[in-house]
Amino acid sequence: MTQAGAARPRRRNDPEAVRRRILDAAVAAFQTGGYHSTSTHEIMRLAAVTSGALHHHFATKKSLGLAIIRERVAQAIEDTWVRPVTTTDSVTEAILAAFDQISGSIEKRGEVYGCPLNNLSLELSAADADFQSALNEVFVRWQSAIGDRIRADQAAGRLGQFDADALATFVVAAYSGAMAMAKTSQSSAPLRVCAHQLKRILEA
Amino acid sequence: MTQAGAARPRRRNDPEAVRRRILDAAVAAFQTGGYHSTSTHEIMRLAAVTSGALHHHFATKKSLGLAIIRERVAQAIEDTWVRPVTTTDSVTEAILAAFDQISGSIEKRGEVYGCPLNNLSLELSAADADFQSALNEVFVRWQSAIGDRIRADQAAGRLGQFDADALATFVVAAYSGAMAMAKTSQSSAPLRVCAHQLKRILEA
Repeated sequence: MTQAGAARPRRRNDPEAVRRRILDAAVAAFQTGGYHSTSTHEIMRLAAVTSGALHHHFATKKSLGLAIIRERVAQAIEDTWVRPVTTTDSVTEAILAAFDQISGSIEKRGEVYGCPLNNLSLELSAADADFQSALNEVFVRWQSAIGDRIRADQAAGRLGQFDADALATFVVAAYSGAMAMAKTSQSSAPLRVCAHQLKRILEA
Repeated sequence: MTQAGAARPRRRNDPEAVRRRILDAAVAAFQTGGYHSTSTHEIMRLAAVTSGALHHHFATKKSLGLAIIRERVAQAIEDTWVRPVTTTDSVTEAILAAFDQISGSIEKRGEVYGCPLNNLSLELSAADADFQSALNEVFVRWQSAIGDRIRADQAAGRLGQFDADALATFVVAAYSGAMAMAKTSQSSAPLRVCAHQLKRILEA
């Protein structure tokens, strides 16, 4: 049996694959250039889809922007923060590992495009209530995961007497601001510095 | 002598006033809508200047963007952070006063447009090296002023043994991130929470 004979016929019309390709193209373009400066024509070109296919999945640029926030940006926070915070041995270890992983990837790539959540938040939150609400949900989820884990570590006697929710907000703020400074200096140094400061505070 | 007689004749052609009007219009438009989504036509309309007048002062939109960063954004950091940090009784007091002043103005206005430096940094730093360098200079000045004052307070025995430059970076990061979260939640709460956390750290 030849390989060609074994292969399933290739589906020419796979709406889910087309939708994924549009999201892949849009998330990359928004991350490097921002939402406003990316045209839907540019996304069609990058995703190699027709105008009809784009509009079938996303009737407006805004509906595409909301899908990027709710699916891709939320997933990035889930992968980088929520899952490690839930599964690593301690919240301190998870926080330091997240900072370290992102600093390392910046050092390897040599370019800083920043945190997709913060990038879109600063660009879109003041301009549109739907974007603001979708972006805020991701921040709330991020803070809640850290706050819950702080409480669990405290209950297990592994962490000092902090206000869990306040400390979670502070960690997310320090990370978000350090990433803004990393983007502006095109260097991982602000992330490394802030990770070390947080380590001192968490281990106090 | 009548008031009209005492008044100096009004100069019809005052290039500096026109330049200021362009900067006033651009700084407001960039702050609410961002750099990319503000057209030069919109700036001409808001400043009530002709295309010739705009191009006389700013040959390109980019030269206007750089002037906004070097003059207006730098001045905002100077007024809100650098001068208070230099003149207030202690660095802790100055930092808490800056957070409090900005939180108060958000609560009064009921809308959060965010920190002009962070807004433009996230929009422009990865896209253009000249913008990145101009924005980074403002961050460096901000951190240096806080770092210098931490060292002065330590020399005077008013502050504990911190790494001054690292703590300065951490304060700027916490503020920048808290402001991103304030913009996304359209609330001063993240700034209030982070100010309280910094107070605990500085007074430890």
